[in-house]
Amino acid sequence: MDNFIFNNPTKIIFGKDTELLVGKETKKYTNKVLLHYGGGSIKKTGLYDRVINSLKEAGIEVFELSGVQPNPRLSLVHKGIDICRKNNIDFILAVGGGSVIDSAKAIAVGVPYEGNVWDFYAGISEPKEALPVATVLTIPAAGSESSNSSVITNEDGWYKRGLTHNLLYPVFSILNPELTYTLPNYQTACGAADIMAHIMERYFTNTQHVELTDRLCEATFKTIVRNIPLALKNPEDYNARAEIMWAGTVAHNNLLNTGRLGDWGSHDIEHEISAIYDIAHGAGLAIVFPAWMKYVYKRDIRRFAQYAQRMWNIDDNLFDLEDVALRGIAALENYFSSIGLPTRLSHVNIDDKHLEEMADKCTASDTQRVGAVMQLNKNDVLNILKLAL
Amino acid sequence: MDNFIFNNPTKIIFGKDTELLVGKETKKYTNKVLLHYGGGSIKKTGLYDRVINSLKEAGIEVFELSGVQPNPRLSLVHKGIDICRKNNIDFILAVGGGSVIDSAKAIAVGVPYEGNVWDFYAGISEPKEALPVATVLTIPAAGSESSNSSVITNEDGWYKRGLTHNLLYPVFSILNPELTYTLPNYQTACGAADIMAHIMERYFTNTQHVELTDRLCEATFKTIVRNIPLALKNPEDYNARAEIMWAGTVAHNNLLNTGRLGDWGSHDIEHEISAIYDIAHGAGLAIVFPAWMKYVYKRDIRRFAQYAQRMWNIDDNLFDLEDVALRGIAALENYFSSIGLPTRLSHVNIDDKHLEEMADKCTASDTQRVGAVMQLNKNDVLNILKLAL
Repeated sequence: MDNFIFNNPTKIIFGKDTELLVGKETKKYTNKVLLHYGGGSIKKTGLYDRVINSLKEAGIEVFELSGVQPNPRLSLVHKGIDICRKNNIDFILAVGGGSVIDSAKAIAVGVPYEGNVWDFYAGISEPKEALPVATVLTIPAAGSESSNSSVITNEDGWYKRGLTHNLLYPVFSILNPELTYTLPNYQTACGAADIMAHIMERYFTNTQHVELTDRLCEATFKTIVRNIPLALKNPEDYNARAEIMWAGTVAHNNLLNTGRLGDWGSHDIEHEISAIYDIAHGAGLAIVFPAWMKYVYKRDIRRFAQYAQRMWNIDDNLFDLEDVALRGIAALENYFSSIGLPTRLSHVNIDDKHLEEMADKCTASDTQRVGAVMQLNKNDVLNILKLAL
Repeated sequence: MDNFIFNNPTKIIFGKDTELLVGKETKKYTNKVLLHYGGGSIKKTGLYDRVINSLKEAGIEVFELSGVQPNPRLSLVHKGIDICRKNNIDFILAVGGGSVIDSAKAIAVGVPYEGNVWDFYAGISEPKEALPVATVLTIPAAGSESSNSSVITNEDGWYKRGLTHNLLYPVFSILNPELTYTLPNYQTACGAADIMAHIMERYFTNTQHVELTDRLCEATFKTIVRNIPLALKNPEDYNARAEIMWAGTVAHNNLLNTGRLGDWGSHDIEHEISAIYDIAHGAGLAIVFPAWMKYVYKRDIRRFAQYAQRMWNIDDNLFDLEDVALRGIAALENYFSSIGLPTRLSHVNIDDKHLEEMADKCTASDTQRVGAVMQLNKNDVLNILKLAL
C-alpha cells in the first residue's frame, strides 16, 4: 500500500425531495449565485422551478447560464467567467450531470485567475483559488459531484483535457435518485459504463497489497452491475436508482484509490474519441475498456483473473488463470452489450480515419506515456484503437 | 435506503513516517497545542520525541496532559479543560488510541462551554462550538480518528456515555501503520473486535434496500478478518498492519451507515460492563456481540444468513436459513476465540453479581430501549447478559 492523503470535504445530501434544501444550504455561503445548467430537461421535469423557488425563498439572487453540452466547451466556460466577474458572483450552483458540474468547476477556477483558464487544463499553470461550487445532480455517471476533477473540451483543435485539484471538490452536492427517473435508458447505460470505468481505472494497478480497496472496488462495481438492469427495466425503481446514484459517487470520490495508483489509460484514450466524434463519454469507455484489457492483461494475469472471479463470479481455475482473465473481459463486454451500449467503434460508425491522429494527440506526438499498468506509447494506443474497431 | 447526509471532513494522512508531518499540519491551525496522551508507551517507542520535535520545529508551543486510561475518565477531561482555559490553548493534539482521542474531544467541547462538559454526554445539553482536535493514531480500534463521537466514563457512579456531534470530527489524523508494530497481541485482537463490532452494528439493520453499504461493510469486515491473524503472527507485517489500520478508520467514519439505521445495542450493553469492570472495550464486545446475535437473530433470519454467507463464506442453504444464520454466529465466536479473545463473561472472571445493575443502567431503569433490530428492554438486556455468562 502506498502512502496517501484522503480528504474529501463534500457534504452529500442524499434522498427524496432533497433538492428542496438547495436554498437553505446555498444561503450558508452566499446571497448571489450563478445557476449553471444544460438544456431544457430540468425545465421539463420541474426541477428548474423547484430549485429557483428554493433559492428565492432563501433570498438568493440568481443569475443563469444554460447551454452546457455533453463534452462541455471552453467557450461557454469563458462566458460564465465573464458573467461572474461583471456581477460579482461568488458561488456557482450546477444543476445537471457531469458536464454541467465540470463546466461549473472550470468557471469557478477561472474567475479569480488573470490568465486563460485553459492554462490549468493544459498543465501550464496551477489554480491558487476558486469560487465554491455546489451541485444538484441529475445523472449518476461522472462522479464530479464529489470529485476534485473537471474535464473540458477546447474547440480550438478539439482537445479534451482534465484538471485535478482539491479546490474542485464541491462544497455540497444534492443527490435525489428520483431526479434520475426520466433519464433515457441509453443515458443510464452510458452512466453505468462511466461509473464502472472509474472503478476499473482504480482496480487495475501495479500497487501490491491493496486488499481493502480491492474489496471496496468490488463492492461498488457489483452494486452497479446488479442494479442497472433493474433501472433499465423499471426507470422509477427508487431502490435501484438510489444504489446506482450513491455507488456512482463512491466510485469517484477518491476513497477507492487510497493507497494505490490507478491506470486511467482508457480514460485518456476515450477522451480523444469523444473530443473528435462527440459521442457520449460512457459509450466511448464501453468501447475502449475491453480493448485496453485485451491489450494489457498479460502484464498481470493474476489481477485480471481476480477481477473476473470477484467482479463477475467467474469460476476459479488456478490451472488456467489466463482463461479466467479472458472470461472476465468477455463478461464485461457482454454486459455492456446487454445494457445497450456499443463495444466497438464500428457500432457508433467510427472508422479508422482518425485513429492515427487520436493516438498522436493522446501521447502528445509520442512524447508522453499513457496509463500505468502498462505505460502506453503512441503505437500501443493505436493498437488498442485498432482492437476497438 | 433512508435519506442521509454524509460529510466527513477529516483529512487522513496515511503511511510510513507520516507522524513527522504533525508539526507542519498543526501549524496551519495554531501556534499552541495541548498534547494529550496516555502513559509511557509513546515515550518508550520514541513517538513522543518525534512528535515533540516536529511540533517544536514548526515553532509550536506545547503543553502536555498525559495519563489517559482505557475507558477515559471525566476527571482528567476536567483537568484538560482547566489547562486549556488557563493557557489560552486553542488546539488539542491526541497521540494514542481511541481513549486518548475521545478524551481530547471531550476537552475540546468542554473548553468553550460554561456548564459541566458531562451535560453533553448525559444528553442534557448540546455543544455549540469546539476546539479543533487532531490525532496521531497508535491503535486501530475505536475509529475515533475519523468519527464524530466520543465515549467518556464518569467515575461518579461509573457511567460510560457517548456523545455524537459533527463538531467532534478531527481536523486531521495521522495514521502510520508502523506505529502499531509494538501493540501487544491481545490489544491488536481487542482492536479487531471493536472494528468488527463497528461494522456489524451498522450491518444489522431493519432498513431495507441497502445493497451498496451491505457490500462495503462486507469488504471492510473481510479485510479485518483476513489480516488480523497475519499481524498476530508477524507484528511487523506492514501490509497487514496497513490494511487493519485503514479498515478500522473506514469502519467508523460513517460511510458504512449511509442510508441505513444501525443497531448499537451491543455497544450500549458493553459500555455497562466495561464501566464497572474496566475490561477492554473490544474484549467486552467479543463477549456481548455473539450473545446479542443469539438473542435477536430470529427477527431477521435472512439478514443473519446473508451475514454468514458473505462475511464468513458459510455455504448457502436456502432450505435451512436458520442453520446458515447460526453457523455465522458460531463462526464469529470461533474467530474471536482463535485470536485470543474472551467470548464469555466467565472468561474474564465476571459472574452474575452485577447483571441486574448493568441492565438497569443500560435502560435507565427500563425507561429507555436499546438497539434497533430489536428494541431491547431491561429484561432483554438481562437475558443477553445471562447468555453471555
